[in-house]
Amino acid sequence: MNKLKIGIVGGTGYTGVELLRLLAVHPNAQLSVITSRSEAGLPVTDMFPSLRGHVDLCFTDPGQADLAACDVVFFATPHGIAMQQARDLLDKGVRIIDLAADFRIRDVAVWEKWYGMTHTCADLVEEAVYGLPEINRDKIRNARLIANPGCYPTSVQLGFMPLLEAGIVDTGHLIADVKSGVSGAGRKAETHTLFAEAGDNFKAYAVAGHRHAPEISQGLSEMARKPVGLVFVPHLTPLIRGIHATLYARLTKQADLQALFEARYANERYVDVMPKGTHPETRSVRGSNQCRISVHQPQGSDTVVVLSVIDNLVKGAAGQAVQNMNIMFDLDERAGLEIVPLLP
Amino acid sequence: MNKLKIGIVGGTGYTGVELLRLLAVHPNAQLSVITSRSEAGLPVTDMFPSLRGHVDLCFTDPGQADLAACDVVFFATPHGIAMQQARDLLDKGVRIIDLAADFRIRDVAVWEKWYGMTHTCADLVEEAVYGLPEINRDKIRNARLIANPGCYPTSVQLGFMPLLEAGIVDTGHLIADVKSGVSGAGRKAETHTLFAEAGDNFKAYAVAGHRHAPEISQGLSEMARKPVGLVFVPHLTPLIRGIHATLYARLTKQADLQALFEARYANERYVDVMPKGTHPETRSVRGSNQCRISVHQPQGSDTVVVLSVIDNLVKGAAGQAVQNMNIMFDLDERAGLEIVPLLP
Amino acid sequence: MNKLKIGIVGGTGYTGVELLRLLAVHPNAQLSVITSRSEAGLPVTDMFPSLRGHVDLCFTDPGQADLAACDVVFFATPHGIAMQQARDLLDKGVRIIDLAADFRIRDVAVWEKWYGMTHTCADLVEEAVYGLPEINRDKIRNARLIANPGCYPTSVQLGFMPLLEAGIVDTGHLIADVKSGVSGAGRKAETHTLFAEAGDNFKAYAVAGHRHAPEISQGLSEMARKPVGLVFVPHLTPLIRGIHATLYARLTKQADLQALFEARYANERYVDVMPKGTHPETRSVRGSNQCRISVHQPQGSDTVVVLSVIDNLVKGAAGQAVQNMNIMFDLDERAGLEIVPLLP
Amino acid sequence: MNKLKIGIVGGTGYTGVELLRLLAVHPNAQLSVITSRSEAGLPVTDMFPSLRGHVDLCFTDPGQADLAACDVVFFATPHGIAMQQARDLLDKGVRIIDLAADFRIRDVAVWEKWYGMTHTCADLVEEAVYGLPEINRDKIRNARLIANPGCYPTSVQLGFMPLLEAGIVDTGHLIADVKSGVSGAGRKAETHTLFAEAGDNFKAYAVAGHRHAPEISQGLSEMARKPVGLVFVPHLTPLIRGIHATLYARLTKQADLQALFEARYANERYVDVMPKGTHPETRSVRGSNQCRISVHQPQGSDTVVVLSVIDNLVKGAAGQAVQNMNIMFDLDERAGLEIVPLLP
Repeated sequence: MNKLKIGIVGGTGYTGVELLRLLAVHPNAQLSVITSRSEAGLPVTDMFPSLRGHVDLCFTDPGQADLAACDVVFFATPHGIAMQQARDLLDKGVRIIDLAADFRIRDVAVWEKWYGMTHTCADLVEEAVYGLPEINRDKIRNARLIANPGCYPTSVQLGFMPLLEAGIVDTGHLIADVKSGVSGAGRKAETHTLFAEAGDNFKAYAVAGHRHAPEISQGLSEMARKPVGLVFVPHLTPLIRGIHATLYARLTKQADLQALFEARYANERYVDVMPKGTHPETRSVRGSNQCRISVHQPQGSDTVVVLSVIDNLVKGAAGQAVQNMNIMFDLDERAGLEIVPLLP
Repeated sequence: MNKLKIGIVGGTGYTGVELLRLLAVHPNAQLSVITSRSEAGLPVTDMFPSLRGHVDLCFTDPGQADLAACDVVFFATPHGIAMQQARDLLDKGVRIIDLAADFRIRDVAVWEKWYGMTHTCADLVEEAVYGLPEINRDKIRNARLIANPGCYPTSVQLGFMPLLEAGIVDTGHLIADVKSGVSGAGRKAETHTLFAEAGDNFKAYAVAGHRHAPEISQGLSEMARKPVGLVFVPHLTPLIRGIHATLYARLTKQADLQALFEARYANERYVDVMPKGTHPETRSVRGSNQCRISVHQPQGSDTVVVLSVIDNLVKGAAGQAVQNMNIMFDLDERAGLEIVPLLP
Repeated sequence: MNKLKIGIVGGTGYTGVELLRLLAVHPNAQLSVITSRSEAGLPVTDMFPSLRGHVDLCFTDPGQADLAACDVVFFATPHGIAMQQARDLLDKGVRIIDLAADFRIRDVAVWEKWYGMTHTCADLVEEAVYGLPEINRDKIRNARLIANPGCYPTSVQLGFMPLLEAGIVDTGHLIADVKSGVSGAGRKAETHTLFAEAGDNFKAYAVAGHRHAPEISQGLSEMARKPVGLVFVPHLTPLIRGIHATLYARLTKQADLQALFEARYANERYVDVMPKGTHPETRSVRGSNQCRISVHQPQGSDTVVVLSVIDNLVKGAAGQAVQNMNIMFDLDERAGLEIVPLLP
Repeated sequence: MNKLKIGIVGGTGYTGVELLRLLAVHPNAQLSVITSRSEAGLPVTDMFPSLRGHVDLCFTDPGQADLAACDVVFFATPHGIAMQQARDLLDKGVRIIDLAADFRIRDVAVWEKWYGMTHTCADLVEEAVYGLPEINRDKIRNARLIANPGCYPTSVQLGFMPLLEAGIVDTGHLIADVKSGVSGAGRKAETHTLFAEAGDNFKAYAVAGHRHAPEISQGLSEMARKPVGLVFVPHLTPLIRGIHATLYARLTKQADLQALFEARYANERYVDVMPKGTHPETRSVRGSNQCRISVHQPQGSDTVVVLSVIDNLVKGAAGQAVQNMNIMFDLDERAGLEIVPLLP
């Protein structure tokens, strides 16, 4: 088979360089074009020397880039860019995977409130498929446009999914206490993510409300087949990569939780249900597309505690995007993703 | 006034060296003796060069140490040591502050279960005062024997206290999702706290049960004046110092939460209620005896979220011990504790 | 004695907040005014919650600030600011300590080359005293204007000083391999100092030339009483605070190096010559004004290796500035500086 | 071709788990046996959950392990183990790659002095090939027994090699100032490598002498074809992985240094000479077998400065071992090693 021609729009951030890391050695992919307005002409390896010997593209000005010649284009851009360029590319037969949030939330008014801009192609929101393979694999297969899930939403949805589908918890009072590494904030120059600010420090933020909350609630509500009540508290922790979700729900029915989770994910290569009584570590998925989950019911309590870890840049972004690409193009879903996590 | 003569039993761990840091410059304290079986004869500064120029003691063998000549003795030892030596010292008129757990839990059977040993002086458990000044200041003043609270218990109890005293939350379903820096595990050589294991990594542990859970439950139940139901999930985070507790409770009555917290702690120098809408960071208390708290009610929810941070080695151990000493000996409660946190 | 009235120009960076940390509890200082153009009107503690309970100033617009009423003004500003305001303040009888580089280099042409701007008051360069107390204490006492040394220059000069003064090394080939924590780059939002860039990473930079090289060479040449040849290689290391200088020189005469260093610094409170054979750690000076040094002659070699550590924000910036203030105003040189380092 | 049957002796340390990470996805390797006395019977993934889904071996007791059925056995053991088992395995036709130091130093008396034990098979020292492919590729091809180089020695030798082979530096006064991540100390439970000790800290150690110094000197002397004088100063830096060597030498002849280095390594896949004026970062090789080097001659100086970075667990240990295996068995030298570094 010919290799897929790949385009990446906005390759200077962390999801961009992570796509490059994965796709540079993907057996079915050929990196064709990567755009950056600010860095046009620069060899990619001047910005990311880690790619020397693996990538020999230069950044192209978006105005010059022949994205239409690609089979698939990834948007690794700030929110609001993909919605401006999606229709044109789709019309030319290019399939799209958007790693930003433009097509994730079906209620456009909600999206506009949280992202602070007007949506320019609401009809495509309807067409877009939410790219969480564990729940939407069949739709992804035929999709032209994938809304790749956010990092927090991936970890939280995979953790709650078996409980909500089984209908055994109080859906009105779900709690997601989630801790993210600093790369989740992106590669923008900002004070609060400086090493001397975020290092040796731990804090919650956005307790009053975070953009990922409506995305998570939308997903959980579909699983529960009714609106859910969710308290979502994100925290910044001095990791480079990694998300650890600690999830709490009140059980309304007893069940063999371990068996429930194992059955739900029996055929999912990238969700690993850990043995009973264990605690997954973020480093156990570092650099890989794996989500690892364990489920606990602390003694004497009617509260279930789910622990769910991912690498925010892989299963929480670029890896899941590649998984979606593999499904869309009928490749082996594992192609390019069988990376052993880096430990220590 | 003469300076207090201070003895420290077991000075080679983190709570020991932290006591030395605080007491070396305390205006009313004179370090008289510090014991260590393994390091007897060694100058303290050979082990902790940070103390050069401030401390000129050597470690003394416990068998040789004249602890009876001290006004107060701090036990910075593993669990189970203080209970063997307490009676003798008390009989000689020495007051004791135990930084380990020997006297924290009033139900001796519960203590024996969690600490895996037989308690050798149960009657002193009854006499001992739990050294959380914000709730027991008057008892501390006259106490001969202080059970200095654990680090997790300090952060969780101070966070829940106003809510439980006011009787406005469902006490059957309290959740404490707490994150600790690695120094909380002590200075023992163990694999899981190596830099290459705990660095760039985040994990929960002991979800099935942790020694601090009964201590916390005991305290919360007293505040609530009835038994509480608590799910306590500790996590290890790549900080050296710091605990961040994220606390969840279901409101049963509406209240002005900000006013409630501010009123409760109006006269407490070492509990700082942050302005509404803010998020305390662990580094904002680094090296200081401060606890900083903020209280939130995320939009649309009947769940209150409390964020509580301390330095586990100061307000969570040595600093609180010094605060207790100041109260016991009728010193200015702030003496030796007016340290500005180290930021960045 | 009345407390000194203190002004700080530019208090939103790391040297500014460090001055606040030290001066807030200095027995002879009263913080009077702190300026910031961008944050005028904001309480200092809104930006730095670590100072809550210790500082209750607001930032003042520089145009509104009555700096002339101060006894001493610290400039914690970017390079090029102090030189614009110094003359006016000096004329009004205010003494100045500049933590930036404006007055450090006596050869104005060299300064202009490295700092990329025209110097606006070259005559004050001549008057300014280089604020390294260990070599200039007498001049500092009567100075109106102090050029506070840079962080790298402090660690390197204190390490080489005894060797150069004794005339026992080849001055043509000095090597300074120096490693700095990330706070040395300041609190500016920049990509290369983000947690996800500088964390778990180590690199050299500016091997071709660094602004601190001429400052160091100037100081070393004065000690040697002839021009020196220096190779200076700075490195960025994932510490928040701390500089570790590893210095190499070829011995031209044998000497008792340990005795030489101990004699040179016998009366210096803030330079601690460590016992023979030891290695100072950066954390052993964390938060303190101490410089710790050890000197080695590896077996069989004619090369002397000096290890010198400081906290870049204290002895390398704000602490040394306070030490200079103490000397200038005939206070106890230790006032406000007897801080025990924070370990762990 | 059939896959090579692989044995690993001592798989519970960092070099062991790193061999597993690399060999689990190596196209020509089949993990057959891994031994551990203390963990016999335990599934490897119980100790290293990062390997779940990739490795399904259990640890075998060394007494039970059929190592003779392997094509190649890696020793990832403490020093002194391989020398006891090597002859027996070689006699049975098994080829050996020792990641410890048993066969690295040709002068057995020197080895015995530094490693504090008697060597039990000095004759095999003579046969063993030092496994630095960039200098010994041909010998490696036919070797039965490989002494895999140490991590410090790899970074230092590759950095000095072009200079020494060209004969253009003063070989009597070479300086290697080298900084290592903490994983270099292994997975042993020790106090000084705890997170709370090694985190946010930087120090030199073993300035008086380090085991790797004679190994480095031996290699450099062969390149120079005469004994060299070396000052080697190792440092511990708060990285998990990574070594950064900063090398200094006095030039005795002028040369185009950039061209010299590029020519020397033109055909070496795993040594990357960076563009002139750049500085390699340790993270640019994280998880990969790459060594990246840049060479500088700071202005006005006759001193050459070489910067050399590797991942201590890959090119400094397990990756180089796999590279040696590939060469020994006439595989593509790149097999299993084309890993893109993990950045950020």
